[in-house]
Amino acid sequence: MARYAIGLDYGTNSCRSLIVNLDNGTEVASHVYAYPSGQMGVIVDPRDPNVARQNPADYRSGLIAIVVEGLKKAHAADPAFSPDTVVGIGVDTTGSTPMPVDRSGTPLALHPEFKDNPDAQAWLWKDHTSHAEAAEITALAGQMRPQYLAKCGGTYSSEWFWAKVLRLKRAAPRVFEAAFSFVELCDWIPAVLTGIEDPLALKRSVCAAGHKALYANVWGGLPDKAFLAALDPALADLRDRLYATAHTADVKAGGLCAGWAKTLGLPAGIAVAVGAFDAHMGAVGAGCAAGKLAKILGTSTCDLLVARNDPPLRDIPGVCGMVDGSVMPGYIGIEAGQSAVGDIFLWCVNHLVPDAYGASQGDKFAALDEAASKLKPGESGLLALDWNNGNRCVLTDVRLSGLLLGQTLHTTAAEIYRALVEATAFGAHMIIDRVRDYGVPVEQVITCGGLSAKSPFLMQVYADVLNMPMAVAASDQTCALGAALFGAVAAGAFENIEAAQAKVCRVRGRVYQPIPENVAVYAELFRLYRQLHDGFGTAAWSGGMANVMKALIALRERQR
Amino acid sequence: MARYAIGLDYGTNSCRSLIVNLDNGTEVASHVYAYPSGQMGVIVDPRDPNVARQNPADYRSGLIAIVVEGLKKAHAADPAFSPDTVVGIGVDTTGSTPMPVDRSGTPLALHPEFKDNPDAQAWLWKDHTSHAEAAEITALAGQMRPQYLAKCGGTYSSEWFWAKVLRLKRAAPRVFEAAFSFVELCDWIPAVLTGIEDPLALKRSVCAAGHKALYANVWGGLPDKAFLAALDPALADLRDRLYATAHTADVKAGGLCAGWAKTLGLPAGIAVAVGAFDAHMGAVGAGCAAGKLAKILGTSTCDLLVARNDPPLRDIPGVCGMVDGSVMPGYIGIEAGQSAVGDIFLWCVNHLVPDAYGASQGDKFAALDEAASKLKPGESGLLALDWNNGNRCVLTDVRLSGLLLGQTLHTTAAEIYRALVEATAFGAHMIIDRVRDYGVPVEQVITCGGLSAKSPFLMQVYADVLNMPMAVAASDQTCALGAALFGAVAAGAFENIEAAQAKVCRVRGRVYQPIPENVAVYAELFRLYRQLHDGFGTAAWSGGMANVMKALIALRERQR
Repeated sequence: MARYAIGLDYGTNSCRSLIVNLDNGTEVASHVYAYPSGQMGVIVDPRDPNVARQNPADYRSGLIAIVVEGLKKAHAADPAFSPDTVVGIGVDTTGSTPMPVDRSGTPLALHPEFKDNPDAQAWLWKDHTSHAEAAEITALAGQMRPQYLAKCGGTYSSEWFWAKVLRLKRAAPRVFEAAFSFVELCDWIPAVLTGIEDPLALKRSVCAAGHKALYANVWGGLPDKAFLAALDPALADLRDRLYATAHTADVKAGGLCAGWAKTLGLPAGIAVAVGAFDAHMGAVGAGCAAGKLAKILGTSTCDLLVARNDPPLRDIPGVCGMVDGSVMPGYIGIEAGQSAVGDIFLWCVNHLVPDAYGASQGDKFAALDEAASKLKPGESGLLALDWNNGNRCVLTDVRLSGLLLGQTLHTTAAEIYRALVEATAFGAHMIIDRVRDYGVPVEQVITCGGLSAKSPFLMQVYADVLNMPMAVAASDQTCALGAALFGAVAAGAFENIEAAQAKVCRVRGRVYQPIPENVAVYAELFRLYRQLHDGFGTAAWSGGMANVMKALIALRERQR
Repeated sequence: MARYAIGLDYGTNSCRSLIVNLDNGTEVASHVYAYPSGQMGVIVDPRDPNVARQNPADYRSGLIAIVVEGLKKAHAADPAFSPDTVVGIGVDTTGSTPMPVDRSGTPLALHPEFKDNPDAQAWLWKDHTSHAEAAEITALAGQMRPQYLAKCGGTYSSEWFWAKVLRLKRAAPRVFEAAFSFVELCDWIPAVLTGIEDPLALKRSVCAAGHKALYANVWGGLPDKAFLAALDPALADLRDRLYATAHTADVKAGGLCAGWAKTLGLPAGIAVAVGAFDAHMGAVGAGCAAGKLAKILGTSTCDLLVARNDPPLRDIPGVCGMVDGSVMPGYIGIEAGQSAVGDIFLWCVNHLVPDAYGASQGDKFAALDEAASKLKPGESGLLALDWNNGNRCVLTDVRLSGLLLGQTLHTTAAEIYRALVEATAFGAHMIIDRVRDYGVPVEQVITCGGLSAKSPFLMQVYADVLNMPMAVAASDQTCALGAALFGAVAAGAFENIEAAQAKVCRVRGRVYQPIPENVAVYAELFRLYRQLHDGFGTAAWSGGMANVMKALIALRERQR
């Protein structure tokens, strides 16, 4: 009898289910539910662009819709499928997306009293109202607990747990007072499904706890009370109402409770796995492994890598986070990323491309891609920095900007587009060099996200710049797929997540191999990129720049 | 009785006459003649893009057409005008545009034997076939006569006299053998008009002789024979068949000879002035004076300035040339320029501007100008280098390229356009700083050329960046106007060229005054520009660049 697992993926504007055949990896059915509240699911405040909240009621109505409709579609698509064949459920969500909850674990927002209070809702990952609190936490940790910062790239973010909770305490003390505890969305969905909603009993995700709530075994879990009290005594008190232990996503959070089994039309008692954040499960669904970096190529990128902690890894400066088990059990999960990748190309297409390339954005992209793919590395004489939205890794500095040099009176938009693609590849190269410098091997890259499937040109540039094979994950829904795999492992359907990946994860089309002559040229260009990167990006750098334009012109003449 | 002078302006594709009322500056009539030979007047070689020659027969047929038709139009336009009222003729031409001539001064190209030989034609200023010879002259002068290079910015150009003559000797020895001498176009037209065509008798222009033929009083006129012999013994021999003295353009080359007086319908004996190059006479026509820099704003710029040689000026490194009397008698003429100005804007409009700004190039320019004019200095956060076509002054380095930094994900084409306009103004600032550093005062700028009349936005940016009043010359034909003024001075109609300018030269519309708050912001931006300029443009510079992006972001935040 075939076995299936369900992955539930809670995104920014919608949630989706994915039902996966565990014997052959077939993605049998999927259903998407758009959150009805706010603007495309996000509660905003016209007076403050930093506000981004979500209504927990949407999560619950979505849960029913995506599972029930998903099961119907699976039944229609696959005669071997029936709800009885589902062995487990896994969950991924955005994060950090914490909610204030009452003693029973019910979000305050579901109480009539707080229903319309934006501060009582879920604080979506991209809510930036706590930027001052984040800076305060960074400053305090710098003084009291530098080890906290070493695990999260040197800067605590307004997108993370403690900044949001502290902000809530200050901006809405009445809500804070009413909250017994706080629960991440990725912990709350499994809690609902298993019926174990008590904040002191429900199993928390180490992926969410990790650097985002400053949780680490080396310092005994969450930040100590002295540190929290220095921020606000109420946070030190709250620590006792959070958790002492956090779990990897292969752990069973519990069995599906009878009530929800009935509501969803699934067998009671099947495994529900501990949750995790979307990118982390996406990396697993893509096929991430030791030495195999998963790169989620979107408007920005998220780079995830796993490494054994033997010998123990040192903290790596300039990566976003290092958390034991955040991606896969038994490995340190290393999280990095670039502030803008697809967004830079979009900017170029929308602002700098004449209509001779096409009337629509899509036409322009296709024409640029084609024209750029005909150029040789170095042929345009251009070199760019990919900092239009700052630099997340390895400089962790938002106060940087784009740079383009090498322009002549003949430079075309397609040449600039290619230079921008190359710049993002060089930015990826910097991250890989950094983790390698700290003893973490990287031998290949597996990508997911629209860009990687749409642009063979981009994939080849990356293969040539990184001098590594580049593959594209077969699944369009790697996050939900990763979640389903963890559901399956939690159910015991596989010995471990690696075994599940081996059975299910596939590559789309061909693997892009580095072309040696391009690799050699890009090695030269990367030295120049690195000179600009260090020169404009680090205060420590000092030297001359007069070689840069001359080297680019010499290379251009050689390549033409 | 009213008095008139005629200016004759020989350009690249056509020649024109301008008939000027000397009592009130009215430009009474003008006639343009397009050269019939070659492609738009230029004889090219499909196998060698460096070739650019002109047919001397075009100069002669043009001479008749532009004067005869000009006189007719003047008669129709101004009842006070008759040919008897013309007191003098002045001539400006492109240059260096030398022609091989026979013993009588007739261009070899006018002999049937050489009629179709491209090497026997006039070698137009932009002929670059002698690039190797120019490099050879630069190298030799560096060893033997460094003082030669000090007067011409350190590099002898393939656009100049000796490189072309040496190239002709090597590429077409038979033509060289047949040539008794070589005559610049600006010397040949006055020679024809006066009938004094003997190469040993005709008056040569110091403007043409100046740095372009390495003529200077301080070393006794043309380069010495030892130097020329080291290039080629034939050049040393040729020196005796050229000239010992060169003259300023206020000097009378002779009286209009009877034959040409009859042909043209003008009184015999009226003054014909010594010729000069177009930009130099354009500067005079624009109103150039001590402390008042004339800037011809076109695809590139030509900057001309005059200064008394008391106390004696030192050689100014990085300017194109310093020649006593090349612009106005009694002054050192200082010539500088930027390799690309209008060309950079054209590149931007043609390659980087979506059609949302307009369908045609003209519409796009107008929309960019309007959008850019609404921005405040520093508001975009952008900073550019104006080196898309290299840097002519003060770096004299063609192996440089454009640079743009400060881009975000929201940077618009209009913001980039403004940054490019600012970059060209900063480039102008560098030149002005350089001549000031050598004791030459610059207090205001008078511009001519299409850009200056078309874009009040650009003029205001220049006024703010340079912190000086910027005026636009009233005349659209400042070169021909300057030539007419020299014709008038040679005729004795004015005591000197300054008196002629005072009577005739006018400003178009308002003078653009610096706006103090913009001046202050541009002073900050210019410091950053200078840092990039020196950093990327000079081998001697060493330092950090990490301040640049942060300063631009801080300025952007302040200005928004």
